[in-house]
Amino acid sequence: MKINVVKNVLEVNDAAAAENRDLLDEAGVLAVNIISAPGSGKTSLLERTLPALGELASAVIVGDLQTSRDAERLGDKARAVTQVNTEGGCHLSAVQIASALGGLDLAGLDFMFIENVGNMVCPSGFDLGEHVRVAMLSTTEGDDKVAKYNTLFQPADVILLNKMDLLGVLDYDVSRVYDDLSRINTRAEVIEISAKTGEGIGRWIDWLKKAAAGK
Amino acid sequence: MKINVVKNVLEVNDAAAAENRDLLDEAGVLAVNIISAPGSGKTSLLERTLPALGELASAVIVGDLQTSRDAERLGDKARAVTQVNTEGGCHLSAVQIASALGGLDLAGLDFMFIENVGNMVCPSGFDLGEHVRVAMLSTTEGDDKVAKYNTLFQPADVILLNKMDLLGVLDYDVSRVYDDLSRINTRAEVIEISAKTGEGIGRWIDWLKKAAAGK
Repeated sequence: MKINVVKNVLEVNDAAAAENRDLLDEAGVLAVNIISAPGSGKTSLLERTLPALGELASAVIVGDLQTSRDAERLGDKARAVTQVNTEGGCHLSAVQIASALGGLDLAGLDFMFIENVGNMVCPSGFDLGEHVRVAMLSTTEGDDKVAKYNTLFQPADVILLNKMDLLGVLDYDVSRVYDDLSRINTRAEVIEISAKTGEGIGRWIDWLKKAAAGK
Repeated sequence: MKINVVKNVLEVNDAAAAENRDLLDEAGVLAVNIISAPGSGKTSLLERTLPALGELASAVIVGDLQTSRDAERLGDKARAVTQVNTEGGCHLSAVQIASALGGLDLAGLDFMFIENVGNMVCPSGFDLGEHVRVAMLSTTEGDDKVAKYNTLFQPADVILLNKMDLLGVLDYDVSRVYDDLSRINTRAEVIEISAKTGEGIGRWIDWLKKAAAGK
């Protein structure tokens, strides 16, 4: 019984995700699902990314259990910011995204950034209808996380290693991250960044533009 | 239908939690459930805590999606360390703890530390049979997390603010954390620590000893 219910939840999610992707495809919008631990820097990344995209127009959907703090930080940087409060839910679902998309004008948009709930586990299991999935790991979370959270890092299309500006003050061996990645994901580009200082953001912007062009 | 299944899962969990607590009570062991984001420093905290407890004997149950890296770090510091691999599960359950307790000799133990899966959402909903619940937040995760994750911080018995040694290099306003806590949890003691430098660990050890004595 339990298995059936779980299967139904995922079937409903996947159907909604496919519809979201169709809608975004029709409008020529690249959807980017960003997943990381809480406090890893997803909102800071978007604060850097949105202005750096220049002429390209973005909307953002922000998922959080409570509060609209992230949406408030991004409000003046994107064409539209939609806050989804999951009220205790540990991930965004495709149905929530469909509802958010319903309230947005997609015409003329280039990017739809989706900032998932801060969580390295649950968001990985739910397709939202995105075109690319971003997994972010910050140096402050430790160099042992890739093998532990392989459901996050294995399917990622690009992996951002954030907070590289703190490398000097932490016990963090970046070679351990690359070593783990060499076993589970050699397909994704790995970009070392600092959302705080701007380090590596140029390479990330280039990656995004290439992904949008290749769609 | 879905609601019934969820209810059953929680009923099964709560029954197992009550049995775990009875078993631990009989043996005079204080069970401590430690919850935080991934990389917040749970294992580092235990590396500091176990030797600092001196004569008092501890066992540890470590939850992780994959790998036994945390258990290996703690192996020589506790009387017993049991690794529970949740194989994708985002939290420990009371049934998993019951299974781990079944393989342990509780006689003569003072503390059972449970290092939950690194996740600020899901572990909060599951009683494991612990006597005290520890919520940990690290400075590197940002000063905006208490209000966002109130299901974690509201029921906590003690709140550890970790990585205080990094305060000087981060944009982190500790008064914002206290301000949020003043609205959701004024019962828990808040202890500022650094698992790296040892700052505040003495106060945390005192808190643990008092909790064990008061049981």
